[in-house]
Amino acid sequence: MPEKKWDRPDGVAAPTSERLSLVLRGLRALEAQGVHTVSSFQLAERFGLNPAQIRKDLAQFGEFGVRGVGYRVPALKAKLKELMGLERTRAVVIVGAGNLGQALADSRNFNVDGFKVAALYDIDGRKIGGKSRTGVPILDLATLPDASGTLKADIGVIAVPAEAALEAARILAGSGVPAILNFAPISVPAADGVFVRNVDLTFFLENLSFQLAVRRR
Amino acid sequence: MPEKKWDRPDGVAAPTSERLSLVLRGLRALEAQGVHTVSSFQLAERFGLNPAQIRKDLAQFGEFGVRGVGYRVPALKAKLKELMGLERTRAVVIVGAGNLGQALADSRNFNVDGFKVAALYDIDGRKIGGKSRTGVPILDLATLPDASGTLKADIGVIAVPAEAALEAARILAGSGVPAILNFAPISVPAADGVFVRNVDLTFFLENLSFQLAVRRR
Repeated sequence: MPEKKWDRPDGVAAPTSERLSLVLRGLRALEAQGVHTVSSFQLAERFGLNPAQIRKDLAQFGEFGVRGVGYRVPALKAKLKELMGLERTRAVVIVGAGNLGQALADSRNFNVDGFKVAALYDIDGRKIGGKSRTGVPILDLATLPDASGTLKADIGVIAVPAEAALEAARILAGSGVPAILNFAPISVPAADGVFVRNVDLTFFLENLSFQLAVRRR
Repeated sequence: MPEKKWDRPDGVAAPTSERLSLVLRGLRALEAQGVHTVSSFQLAERFGLNPAQIRKDLAQFGEFGVRGVGYRVPALKAKLKELMGLERTRAVVIVGAGNLGQALADSRNFNVDGFKVAALYDIDGRKIGGKSRTGVPILDLATLPDASGTLKADIGVIAVPAEAALEAARILAGSGVPAILNFAPISVPAADGVFVRNVDLTFFLENLSFQLAVRRR
């Protein structure tokens, strides 16, 4: 996604973050294979990245490599997790228990090392009290502000229709949730001190259409 | 998402595509408001983009602006749609009629100007023959290769569990679908001549965690 001004008040660019996510994934795989050291070239090769870019991304945050050795896998992994705030598990709450909300609650991508989906919230009495397929409880949205103290949610995901998205964002921000990931087809602006990432699924389709059009020429 | 090598064999970088998607969206809004000309500065301002970047993105593909006037809204919109292959409606098929597939089929983001979700495909006999909430038919995945001639699907979306994703990609590619958008939590490699865009939802969570961690320091 392109970065809108209000998406990154503190200036960690999304591409840097995404490359470091890939590096972290690589390190996890290497560790599982018992590999102890790795060069930026090997890391880059594994994920089709540029080795110089990896060194540059990491250099922004400190001195990680050992000259002539490369990176020590467990140390770099631990450092990267700490840098990205993944040394502890982040609680995620999802507003909207429709198809999208439940798909996200049950997704392996949302239940990986570092994250846990604590609850789905909805306003539909027929859904409240139920559970998603993998057992995430569906709670009454009206109870989110009260629950937020005990839940300590780090990330609120918006999976409601466009017309309900701004209200969902207001409730999340008002409940002290410091970061919002919005999948509704409308941009949610950042509130005071709340990070907002708007994901526009249309961009992915448009990108593929663009690729097809360029190839045809 | 970071671009893996095989994500863009022809070299339209995703960030360029996404910025042009934003510009196109801006032009649509301006046209609806009856605005006839716009400067790169005004376009940039509207979306928190950099005006020089917009000029650079557009300049890659031709001469669009008129010196001292800026861009003519309807002409630039038409040109951009043509450039991005959106001058005609692209047919989208979705493999997997679970929560995610149905959410995508019904999403406003997947049913915008330029795209039409033609069908969902599944292997579950209890779903086949049904429809999504907005009326997208759920068809038998076994019939996709035969149907592809009449459907002329441009984009196949993978919304199945990780363990079924490679098979879904194989069926789509074998049915002549030239572009794949993969939401399964596993990377699908590009097949001959098929564009693949892997969307990893974990990256969005990791990016927000990173932002929170950086702010805390």
